[in-house]
Amino acid sequence: MADVRMRGFKQRTEVAAFQSLIREKIAPVGDENVPLAEAGGRVLAAPVTSEVSVPPFPRSAMDGYALRSEETFGAGTYNPLTFQVIGEVTPGRNFSGAVGAGQAVRIMTGAPMPEGADAVLMAEYASESGGVMTATEAVSPKKHVGRVGEDIEAGAKVFAEGRWLRAQDLGILASIGVAEIKVQKKPAVTLLITGNELLKPGEKPEGAKIVDSNSIMLKMLIERDGGTVAEIRHLEDDPEVIRDSLLNAPGDLIVTTGGTSVGVEDHAPLLVAEEGELLVHGVAMRPSAPTGFGMAAGRPVFLLPGNPVSCLGAYDFFVALAIRRLGRRKEHWPYRKALYPLRDRISSQIGRLDYARVKLVDGEAVLLATSGASILSSTTEADGFVVVEQNSEGLPAGREAEVWLYE
Amino acid sequence: MADVRMRGFKQRTEVAAFQSLIREKIAPVGDENVPLAEAGGRVLAAPVTSEVSVPPFPRSAMDGYALRSEETFGAGTYNPLTFQVIGEVTPGRNFSGAVGAGQAVRIMTGAPMPEGADAVLMAEYASESGGVMTATEAVSPKKHVGRVGEDIEAGAKVFAEGRWLRAQDLGILASIGVAEIKVQKKPAVTLLITGNELLKPGEKPEGAKIVDSNSIMLKMLIERDGGTVAEIRHLEDDPEVIRDSLLNAPGDLIVTTGGTSVGVEDHAPLLVAEEGELLVHGVAMRPSAPTGFGMAAGRPVFLLPGNPVSCLGAYDFFVALAIRRLGRRKEHWPYRKALYPLRDRISSQIGRLDYARVKLVDGEAVLLATSGASILSSTTEADGFVVVEQNSEGLPAGREAEVWLYE
Repeated sequence: MADVRMRGFKQRTEVAAFQSLIREKIAPVGDENVPLAEAGGRVLAAPVTSEVSVPPFPRSAMDGYALRSEETFGAGTYNPLTFQVIGEVTPGRNFSGAVGAGQAVRIMTGAPMPEGADAVLMAEYASESGGVMTATEAVSPKKHVGRVGEDIEAGAKVFAEGRWLRAQDLGILASIGVAEIKVQKKPAVTLLITGNELLKPGEKPEGAKIVDSNSIMLKMLIERDGGTVAEIRHLEDDPEVIRDSLLNAPGDLIVTTGGTSVGVEDHAPLLVAEEGELLVHGVAMRPSAPTGFGMAAGRPVFLLPGNPVSCLGAYDFFVALAIRRLGRRKEHWPYRKALYPLRDRISSQIGRLDYARVKLVDGEAVLLATSGASILSSTTEADGFVVVEQNSEGLPAGREAEVWLYE
Repeated sequence: MADVRMRGFKQRTEVAAFQSLIREKIAPVGDENVPLAEAGGRVLAAPVTSEVSVPPFPRSAMDGYALRSEETFGAGTYNPLTFQVIGEVTPGRNFSGAVGAGQAVRIMTGAPMPEGADAVLMAEYASESGGVMTATEAVSPKKHVGRVGEDIEAGAKVFAEGRWLRAQDLGILASIGVAEIKVQKKPAVTLLITGNELLKPGEKPEGAKIVDSNSIMLKMLIERDGGTVAEIRHLEDDPEVIRDSLLNAPGDLIVTTGGTSVGVEDHAPLLVAEEGELLVHGVAMRPSAPTGFGMAAGRPVFLLPGNPVSCLGAYDFFVALAIRRLGRRKEHWPYRKALYPLRDRISSQIGRLDYARVKLVDGEAVLLATSGASILSSTTEADGFVVVEQNSEGLPAGREAEVWLYE
């Protein structure tokens, strides 16, 4: 790929082609064992089979009385039947005796069923006095009894590989005695923030210097997509400094910001070409056109524009996809989507995808006038964005458009 | 409120009334300052006004040449105009001279505009050789120049109080020089897991003991809703042990599991009544009916059923609301919602809200047959749930129902 510096992009890669290339080049990272308590939101790297039945014993599903169901037949408000209460069983303990004819054992929800009993009469239909329980309702066999393996059978496959672990999944895993579990590793990303003009987040802007706003934004997005930030390096626009980090920084993926375009200090694309292969440089998208992608020293590298809106768009369209693939997550965006009529026309060019920020006003999506890629406030004023596909000339006013909501 | 143990619930609180009570009794916790890097996903506790303009100087929005726009008028492919290149300006540095008639300064995106220049000619429309730049396009005044305060004006209100901070918001805050920011405190929740039968997550089920699956599930849900778990205590069913934790455990909110129903070992409701006020005990909902709520020693306490499905339902309907209010988040569930036709009828009773787990099969929502509140696997097999409102007798087969998707 030729040096495009100060000559402009000759060819722009289409968004869909770029995404296909990411799918082709990027495969999931490995797996690791984590304690169950840290497995929420992680992706299972192996199927899970239960070694035990849940519950491991027949248990009561109600508070009431364990008894022989056939002896309650005919009981009712006008035909109360009496039982001798021979004891009580609470969760965590087994009843030592057995329930015989005319007998009942007071039982609490979750307690193991005593020998001899086959059903539970709910407390609501019983009254007890002086060791005698009076039943005013009949129960059928097995009523309010949870059988062994009712929740999970021993040997059953509980989860398939690739499952994103929900809160209730952790509960199931705990209940079958899992202490540690194999999940996909979180893809580790190193951010190389280039630009002589940049101060670090937390510093005050001064003179010709501005504060880098991309690293802090990208870190939150990377974590949202299941990745982790290995390191953030703020680098001068010096090709040898950038080259050293491209080759030696830690991480499964490198993301650079700044220096990706066609200016004399845009070193990153050339460096990737020299140390591996520059596969994309320039994308048919607005904003975010000066985005690049390649492999350097065997590792994927994304070159994101320094302008914050371009950086955000390029992250969401390309880097998010890569991180989700590395971590074996579903590809879809975590944004909610809703339909709103457009107040104004959104113009676009055939052959170019547009990432248009909109604000929701009185039930309509209003295009934010600031089209500049440097206007980060357009993404904070916006409630979301509309994607104008590349084969579209734009969307007319009044058209219902899909709005991806930022929150 | 009378002791309902072994006599059943007399009155059940309606779900909407319970939620109103939570809104009435629970107010946001205080605020704290956090470093900007930790502020993602937090809620602003004060409005933010910018002390600086962004950009703080006029800057180039493109790579190209800074020049006097009026001198480019008439330039075109068939009328190239030439300029003397008197230097270069890159981001982070100011150009020391000024641009005069017939002159241009090579400029990179983000660099401060040199004195004298009022526009930037894109590199694509220029060629340079031997210190002379040839322009093949005219530019209008201010073209490709970002004015001072274009992104943010000094003195402008950047964010209102109560805003949930997105990734791009952190970027804006960094760019205006914020290092630390005032956000709502994360509500701290202590979990009191009661039950003699319970082992801790990570242990193996054995004998009459089963593993507590609620604490690990609740911890992930609490964190999802912006809270933090102060402590998890596994307690025996001993009223004095539970009382001590109710009074002395840390946290803004106490959540108990187990022992909330009408059994002889269901101590929690009585303890809350003794140490404060038991406001709700028994809810018109299936599952999750044996849920309670009150204030003990001035602090809100939720009594959740030990059965995991009931526990999950009660958490989502009541505790999630309380934690979101404490942390000043929007009340809505973080689940996505979609419409699916029901394969089967869902029956309900007038006066009771149903939380019905469904699986999506061939584009239809299929009710999971296991109705038991102890069957946690019904929530892991399910793709989501349908809420049958209390004034409904159920939903007919074929009806399009709103499904709240677990992921």
